[in-house]
Amino acid sequence: MNTTTPQYVVGIDLGGTTAKFGIVDKEGNILEQDRIATASEKPVNFFVDELHKKLQPMIDRHGGKENFIGIGMGAPNGNLYTGNIEYAANLHWQGIVPIAHLITEKFDIKTILTNDANAAAMGEMMYGAAKGMKHFITITLGTGVGSGIVIDGKMVVGHDGFAGELGHVIVRHGGRLHRGTGSRGCLESYASATGVKDTAVEFLAANPTKVSLLRDFAEEDLTSQTVYECAIKGDEIAKGIFDFTGEILGEALANFVMFSSPQAIILFGGLTKAGSYIMNPTKEAMEKNLIQVFKNKVQLMFSNLKESDAAILGASALVWD
Amino acid sequence: MNTTTPQYVVGIDLGGTTAKFGIVDKEGNILEQDRIATASEKPVNFFVDELHKKLQPMIDRHGGKENFIGIGMGAPNGNLYTGNIEYAANLHWQGIVPIAHLITEKFDIKTILTNDANAAAMGEMMYGAAKGMKHFITITLGTGVGSGIVIDGKMVVGHDGFAGELGHVIVRHGGRLHRGTGSRGCLESYASATGVKDTAVEFLAANPTKVSLLRDFAEEDLTSQTVYECAIKGDEIAKGIFDFTGEILGEALANFVMFSSPQAIILFGGLTKAGSYIMNPTKEAMEKNLIQVFKNKVQLMFSNLKESDAAILGASALVWD
Repeated sequence: MNTTTPQYVVGIDLGGTTAKFGIVDKEGNILEQDRIATASEKPVNFFVDELHKKLQPMIDRHGGKENFIGIGMGAPNGNLYTGNIEYAANLHWQGIVPIAHLITEKFDIKTILTNDANAAAMGEMMYGAAKGMKHFITITLGTGVGSGIVIDGKMVVGHDGFAGELGHVIVRHGGRLHRGTGSRGCLESYASATGVKDTAVEFLAANPTKVSLLRDFAEEDLTSQTVYECAIKGDEIAKGIFDFTGEILGEALANFVMFSSPQAIILFGGLTKAGSYIMNPTKEAMEKNLIQVFKNKVQLMFSNLKESDAAILGASALVWD
Repeated sequence: MNTTTPQYVVGIDLGGTTAKFGIVDKEGNILEQDRIATASEKPVNFFVDELHKKLQPMIDRHGGKENFIGIGMGAPNGNLYTGNIEYAANLHWQGIVPIAHLITEKFDIKTILTNDANAAAMGEMMYGAAKGMKHFITITLGTGVGSGIVIDGKMVVGHDGFAGELGHVIVRHGGRLHRGTGSRGCLESYASATGVKDTAVEFLAANPTKVSLLRDFAEEDLTSQTVYECAIKGDEIAKGIFDFTGEILGEALANFVMFSSPQAIILFGGLTKAGSYIMNPTKEAMEKNLIQVFKNKVQLMFSNLKESDAAILGASALVWD
């Protein structure tokens, strides 16, 4: 029997289509990783069984459960206080799902849950751009817009565990409809993958006679990636899409700064691949909307974590913390 | 010599026209209070001397400095970390004013400074509507719009001490000009005393043929108080002013809730005297703009502290904390 201090943790990133998981050491090395599908309509117990089949052998290969401090898990609407996933719109499981409890029971290893965006923030603090920082915000610009807020070195979860839904703040009164929530003008309606596509469709329709490389793409292929490819070729409409998105995002970021006065805001996810096309208008709009005392103080940066690793590292950071 | 534990603190609320100060005991009783003017153009040392003339005898009547734990002070742009007032627009003193240091030296009693809105939040937590709460936000709707944010029982001051400037968040893109900061569409431009007056002037001009009791007032007398007096008499334009203000304020509050998920938001200051005329549209707009997970959870309430005492109590709470 191994009597030394446990030296590994498991990080699990649960998403709407896949769950990625890996064995992580203290230095943030992912020693082994794998994934399973989550889009199945089968109940959550089925998922836990599938996870067990693949993850338990990985745990055994690294000294068994005695060698693990815990399992950290990030999931949409994951609640740190209750260990439940509660009413997650992007998952098939309905209502309240006691996922941390089910995994703790199955593996006999303590499991800590939080929402996926908070897990990403923990990953940035432990292994990424926010290393050593005590005040920062991470914004994930992906399928949706997620956020993790750290104040004084602690993740902000609020009185009920649900704080940090910055994708849903209203940035354009009476603006674009959010198909999921029904609200109008929220950040996610503009700065997510769907938002960028909607902007592209709107801009092309509003300028019917203007030549654009974007017209060669089918609507479903108008992603931030294709818009970026057109922008670097000098396409004016493509560049305008990033300017528009950045102006809205930057204004929202200014509001976040005036709330918690962070040292840095770290952007992550698909949209960040557009580099300076999205960074420049975002930074300009943020600075423009800040009052004097905050100007030129906040570092706005892209995450430097590999996207495929970041979620697992973030989830694992929950346990080290 | 008195060798028992110190039992009092001094609370000082420094504003643009007066500084109020008082001796406070642990139960939040103000045993004695007074005030001096601050609008003088004389340097800060002159203010400290004037304060000493009036406050030292009060301290002496309560056992002298040995009987005092400290002096707590709230001031515009007061910085908890540095003890300095930094670039406060509403004060005559320019630049960086080391006020906590000056007062500590003059009285030989440790002085803690924070901004006035944070002091108000501390007062609510210790003696007011937020007693026993660990997650809440206070919004002061006065000459300006100030805010104090408490998360996990701690005041949010950010990495530089300036967090919680919620009056300056942008709520109407490209909206009303803020005369002080030059920004457009910030909350303070609508929900402050000046904002309400501006709205009244705009509404009267936009409806030139509509009868309104508000037309009997000179522009400088269009305050939230006079608008309220007209509203209770059934004046439609007056009621519309509160509906408009509440819609903007409520939308901003929804955004704050999605940031830190507080148990309560406590409103304070002149505008709250309009009671349900401002509370109802504010609450309606807040709930409307919240995503499901936050709906019907946040207590929106008015402060129950006496306005004249609240600032002194809040400043004193800094020391007890």
